[in-house]
Amino acid sequence: MNHLNKEVTLCGWVQKSRDLGGLTFIDLRDRYGITQLTFNMEDKPALCKEARALGREYVIQVKGTVRERSSKNLNILTGEIEVDVDVISVLNASKTPPFTIEDETDGGEELRMKYRYLDLRRKPVQDKILLRSKIAQSVRNYLANADFIEIETPYLIKSTPEGARDFVVPSRMNEGQFYALPQSPQTFKQLLMVSGYDKYFQIVKCFRDEDLRADRQPEFTQIDCEMSFVEQEDVLNTFEKMVKTIFKEVKQVDLPVFPRMTYADAMKKYGSDKPDIRFGMEFYELNHLAQGKGFKVFDEAELVVGINVKGAASYSRKQLDALTKYVQTPQVGAKGLVYVKLNEDGTIKSSVDKFYTAEQLQEWANGMEANKGDLLLIISGKANQSRFAMNSLRLHLGNELGLRPKDKFAPLWVIDFPLLEQDEETGDLHAMHHPFTSPKAEDVDKLSTTPTEVRANAYDMVINGVELGGGSIRISQKEMQQKMLRLLGFSDEEAKAQFGFLMDAFEYGTPPHGGIAFGFDRLCALIGGTDSIRDYIAFPKNNAGRDVMIDAPAKLDEEQMKELGIKLQSN
Amino acid sequence: MNHLNKEVTLCGWVQKSRDLGGLTFIDLRDRYGITQLTFNMEDKPALCKEARALGREYVIQVKGTVRERSSKNLNILTGEIEVDVDVISVLNASKTPPFTIEDETDGGEELRMKYRYLDLRRKPVQDKILLRSKIAQSVRNYLANADFIEIETPYLIKSTPEGARDFVVPSRMNEGQFYALPQSPQTFKQLLMVSGYDKYFQIVKCFRDEDLRADRQPEFTQIDCEMSFVEQEDVLNTFEKMVKTIFKEVKQVDLPVFPRMTYADAMKKYGSDKPDIRFGMEFYELNHLAQGKGFKVFDEAELVVGINVKGAASYSRKQLDALTKYVQTPQVGAKGLVYVKLNEDGTIKSSVDKFYTAEQLQEWANGMEANKGDLLLIISGKANQSRFAMNSLRLHLGNELGLRPKDKFAPLWVIDFPLLEQDEETGDLHAMHHPFTSPKAEDVDKLSTTPTEVRANAYDMVINGVELGGGSIRISQKEMQQKMLRLLGFSDEEAKAQFGFLMDAFEYGTPPHGGIAFGFDRLCALIGGTDSIRDYIAFPKNNAGRDVMIDAPAKLDEEQMKELGIKLQSN
Repeated sequence: MNHLNKEVTLCGWVQKSRDLGGLTFIDLRDRYGITQLTFNMEDKPALCKEARALGREYVIQVKGTVRERSSKNLNILTGEIEVDVDVISVLNASKTPPFTIEDETDGGEELRMKYRYLDLRRKPVQDKILLRSKIAQSVRNYLANADFIEIETPYLIKSTPEGARDFVVPSRMNEGQFYALPQSPQTFKQLLMVSGYDKYFQIVKCFRDEDLRADRQPEFTQIDCEMSFVEQEDVLNTFEKMVKTIFKEVKQVDLPVFPRMTYADAMKKYGSDKPDIRFGMEFYELNHLAQGKGFKVFDEAELVVGINVKGAASYSRKQLDALTKYVQTPQVGAKGLVYVKLNEDGTIKSSVDKFYTAEQLQEWANGMEANKGDLLLIISGKANQSRFAMNSLRLHLGNELGLRPKDKFAPLWVIDFPLLEQDEETGDLHAMHHPFTSPKAEDVDKLSTTPTEVRANAYDMVINGVELGGGSIRISQKEMQQKMLRLLGFSDEEAKAQFGFLMDAFEYGTPPHGGIAFGFDRLCALIGGTDSIRDYIAFPKNNAGRDVMIDAPAKLDEEQMKELGIKLQSN
Repeated sequence: MNHLNKEVTLCGWVQKSRDLGGLTFIDLRDRYGITQLTFNMEDKPALCKEARALGREYVIQVKGTVRERSSKNLNILTGEIEVDVDVISVLNASKTPPFTIEDETDGGEELRMKYRYLDLRRKPVQDKILLRSKIAQSVRNYLANADFIEIETPYLIKSTPEGARDFVVPSRMNEGQFYALPQSPQTFKQLLMVSGYDKYFQIVKCFRDEDLRADRQPEFTQIDCEMSFVEQEDVLNTFEKMVKTIFKEVKQVDLPVFPRMTYADAMKKYGSDKPDIRFGMEFYELNHLAQGKGFKVFDEAELVVGINVKGAASYSRKQLDALTKYVQTPQVGAKGLVYVKLNEDGTIKSSVDKFYTAEQLQEWANGMEANKGDLLLIISGKANQSRFAMNSLRLHLGNELGLRPKDKFAPLWVIDFPLLEQDEETGDLHAMHHPFTSPKAEDVDKLSTTPTEVRANAYDMVINGVELGGGSIRISQKEMQQKMLRLLGFSDEEAKAQFGFLMDAFEYGTPPHGGIAFGFDRLCALIGGTDSIRDYIAFPKNNAGRDVMIDAPAKLDEEQMKELGIKLQSN
């Protein structure tokens, strides 16, 4: 309001115009919002006609005087004022855009992607891009204040053994040879620790050439960090504080202390290594109560697992059928769903009444801390599969019951991940995080006997069921790194060819070190309160990895391929 | 000093140890400096023996008490104290490094590149990496405070017509098609202006696949910026202030107001579009004085150009011969060098005494503002070549005479660049900056008649003869962009295929816009006071574009190439 009656010059886009006979109003849009421009036919008829000729999305400059509005719009920042215009200059005209530039647009996904530069004008999209910029500054300020050094690692590196997912880049100067784009700066940040840069960070693009799911992009951004002379506790504290600081600065939200949960507990209680703990509905294992009573399905199951849906005894047959169908979808994969209703009148009704007495079912209820009015849902089968299905059901119910509000944030550290996982078919061991993760000192002995039981110094930060970041204390001894690579099936020659430089480096005074990497796109999406990371990327690719706006990727000239020393397989 | 007599725990590397019989001293190095550790054989013989067993570059942790040193070393930050150690833990041993980890090392370039992680431990290298981090924060803080939005543009884009320099990336999901890595985010930042993000910035990697000179890297970093609703003046002011702020914050140097010089003046006065104005020695054009007096070399020259080397009349014959040889080297390319000595005794001695009288030479001296004791050096021939050679000579003399001190900074804006340059052989027109640069309004008419005379709204920031950044006000009208691309020899089909998305965007209300991009590596080198940008890159590539530490680029598996749908030409 302190510009009142001042002369101003404004530039922006014509959002819309209204012609009310004697008066013409134009909403002028710029990065900072909407300003109403007024033109009076009686006072300035020529100007008013000029104004009426302006189309949507014209870029104009106006000079005029700020006035108080007679009818104020308190929903927008500049809603109390308007500008009484004296001069209009059209800086550029516009064709009618292919979709409306409004919060709710009539443009479909594909059209908006093709004209992404117009989609980016819409306020909900702009808000997301601005939020991302703010979060980036907040992250950098926190880390710089904590004495972290920003160091750029190279983009043109070497293909790694998980090479199938590398994007590669033919080198003109080294014909027949290729660089790879990094899936992460992992080895370089470890080398920086060897070099004595005891706190490193970088917000950096990473690349992965794999089939894209809805929530994946071939190029994505990481907040990448590493520290020396630290233990797990130091890393957790540093980055818990970072995320709290970001939430406070950017969203004015005070996050609570992050509870910690072991991987084993997370799997047992939630069937997931990234549980959403905005709500309870924890798992109860019922083998001891449910087995041996003649119900074959349960008797033959490795695991009988249930959840207590508070107050849901009133679910109708139809609702229960829908839940059963849901767990039977291929993505969830359960064979069926058993229910036990603890009716308000004290009676118990279940889908297994034939096999269990009311007393037995009451025992289940007691075991599951259930009361009158609650609904018990039970899945059985292979342990892993049952947990997986029950996790899906729990989240599904969480959504259905409104237990997962976007404005509630439940952070969590999941710790003590297994070091290795075993391929069920081949028996091969894979690193659960990556081959540089260190085993817990107290479990090292098991490496040669029961390697799958070895726990790692590895941790994930999870908020609202979203894995925001993960990291580990690394191996810093050559011998241990060699042992690890052998366990993963590398021959010593392969290990040397791929990671020789890192293992050599370990021999020259390597400090204990560890770190973490956050998915920056995902962090933005979580703070912004939407599910798709794509919304937070200015120029995202579609599910086929294409940028439909610039039409990339595209064919190359024969000439250019020749210079690069490559040709197509199909030729 | 306020830690005196406190218990401390320190971690770091053994820089060196000295065994003085009863006392053993160890210099412990960490990121923050050197701390002296003391071990007394009399008090703690076992501990002292442990200390003596530590090799160079061992990583250790010590606990002890901070004491005042008896002999202080005021050259280092922690030189007044030492730590009287109670406990040593060896965190990791080290082999003897292949070169000494000292300010002056015995390792050659190649060895240091192979063990870059050890080279990075040396203080002069570390200082550069830390400086770079500081400069990055300073840049971002300035721009964020000035309301610039940080937006990431994509790395996997489309090959451009200057495609010969693009690195390309085969797409697995779109077989036979390729992405390109950006040489700059130019078109994307212009699209962001179309989208209404009126101030954009990004510190971003760019890629160029070309033969590498000493000061080039295949991947390099840019500070990339763009603004809407601005004129050249706004851009110059914004970024002059940015660079002043950085110099002040990072180097405690107050830069003066940046003078402005047209391209035409820069070429005339310095023979360069990036003159080093730390010193004078400007060019004088002598055609009117030197021609028509019977000296054929000058008479047939397009340009006779001289500089006045103040106080250098005392140069010996040998020195003058050396300068003549210098200008005759192929890189400089002059045919010869004429000198005129204005001796202190009032006599004049020149290499062209046969052709000119003392009075005539005195006229030259007057025209060149020369006095007794000065030396005039003159080159003639084709105008461009003579200016080029004289520029080289001027800089050479500047170095020789100590006129280019590293701690003096002379910034400059060079403005009014030509829009186009003409290939002397083919007559083809090329964009001097890039095809998106706008012509000056007052020169637009010449586009169809004398296009090489058209000046552009283009500018470079030059400090100490180094081009730090360059930019322009862009074309924002489709018709003008089309006209420009036609002038550059694009068919309308080619233009549409390459830049159709940008020209389409121009039709939907594009604001006037312009920007600038700075070479970040070069900015760091300039502030750091060294010539090579490579020193400021944590993991640089060598002149063959190789990372010798990780040995990249490298061959790919047949299998991997097959998956990517490519094979080698040689197969």
